[in-house]
Amino acid sequence: MKKTPLILVTNDDGINAPGLRMLIKIMNEIGDVVVVAPDSPQSGMGHAITINSTLYCREIKNSNGPQKEFQCSGTPADCVKLAVNELMNKKPDLCVSGINHGSNSSINVIYSGTMSAAIEAGIEGIPAIGFSLLNYKWNANFKNLKPFIKNITSTALKNKIPSNIVLNVNFPKHKKIKGIKICRQAIAYWIEKFDKRKNPMGRDYYWLSGEFINEDKGKDTDEWALNKGYISVVPTLFDFTSHKHISELKEWKFK
Amino acid sequence: MKKTPLILVTNDDGINAPGLRMLIKIMNEIGDVVVVAPDSPQSGMGHAITINSTLYCREIKNSNGPQKEFQCSGTPADCVKLAVNELMNKKPDLCVSGINHGSNSSINVIYSGTMSAAIEAGIEGIPAIGFSLLNYKWNANFKNLKPFIKNITSTALKNKIPSNIVLNVNFPKHKKIKGIKICRQAIAYWIEKFDKRKNPMGRDYYWLSGEFINEDKGKDTDEWALNKGYISVVPTLFDFTSHKHISELKEWKFK
Repeated sequence: MKKTPLILVTNDDGINAPGLRMLIKIMNEIGDVVVVAPDSPQSGMGHAITINSTLYCREIKNSNGPQKEFQCSGTPADCVKLAVNELMNKKPDLCVSGINHGSNSSINVIYSGTMSAAIEAGIEGIPAIGFSLLNYKWNANFKNLKPFIKNITSTALKNKIPSNIVLNVNFPKHKKIKGIKICRQAIAYWIEKFDKRKNPMGRDYYWLSGEFINEDKGKDTDEWALNKGYISVVPTLFDFTSHKHISELKEWKFK
Repeated sequence: MKKTPLILVTNDDGINAPGLRMLIKIMNEIGDVVVVAPDSPQSGMGHAITINSTLYCREIKNSNGPQKEFQCSGTPADCVKLAVNELMNKKPDLCVSGINHGSNSSINVIYSGTMSAAIEAGIEGIPAIGFSLLNYKWNANFKNLKPFIKNITSTALKNKIPSNIVLNVNFPKHKKIKGIKICRQAIAYWIEKFDKRKNPMGRDYYWLSGEFINEDKGKDTDEWALNKGYISVVPTLFDFTSHKHISELKEWKFK
């Protein structure tokens, strides 16, 4: 008899986000689901953790289905730590994060709460996948993604994700998805534009906004695949050492 | 005549932290210094950015010296974005972050506000170094580090840090430092322990704490070097693609 996988589901848009609700539905068809998600949106939290403050967490029931659900006052990385070390009786076989409302392709991975949850699981030895849709709308069409997410998840469970990576999966906005491409992260960056305003007390403040600049035209990049209507899958590291630069730096003569 | 480098100084412990004040002093001897640092401690913020809220920033003068100083309400990554895109007239030649009160070696790099500031600068094309001392005390002895920081900084300026990495420099707690080692990040993790308590209203809450587990005994790791009394220098990536896993994943048969 095949063992039913135990699946931890989390996200960064908060426990009520439609992307998360769809991911729960899909995972209920694959395994036993425990949800531990932030009680409020945590976009752009990167790999933040709560170390100088307290965490609240409580069991809730947000929608029908067999899943167990907890909402937590912390960041996505906090949710994974709390799930694995406090709330779950055994180590999950898989952690899935998302479906994020918006892109986590290219350099966006570094600011992403969705991916930090997946990476936190990876560090703790749990196979993990982050799912994101290139559509920021709250009511984006996540339903379309169901067969792809089931396919990617079961393929990953079967083939086993290598222990030193997690998967960063992004879905294009296109109505008709062409297929799945294994990609590298496009080397891109943001040019920030700060919108400077005055508050009612006359004090200056800023809103951060910006423009995404991608000069990396490689056909092996996630940006290329997504623009062409493919799903991008990037194997994502959490050992940040640039091994190939070690010998170069050893040549430097320190005084 | 040699050009004086323009140096952006930031940190995650906040604008008043002794580690930052020492780093400003040292950088004043190397170049023209602009400080943009958080107005309050931001430890554990990882690569968080402020996207759903406003940022405040004002020029202050916190200590003697020729440096210009700004304090900002955001995260370390926000400080770098604001500095480069709003506050500084020209692109800095170098960004240094720290000196952090506590370790950013091994997997700690991923949770580190100090290193996220350096990485943000790296993404924006600015050579960058994060400095951390393995001592969490507010009044740790940072003075001892001065000749080493001057040496590492000027050597990095002379040799030029490759454009796709930043340097993660950690100092051991030892009184007598043996030298500098170029290292890889030790593969380690934290086992979390959540301290569950009740608040005055009777509601459960948690404090996150944990134990650092390093089973990676490699003599080429930062943990090994630091334990032996050496300074560790790790070339740190911000392209998180695991290039060597791309071909492996391409073998997976998606349904």
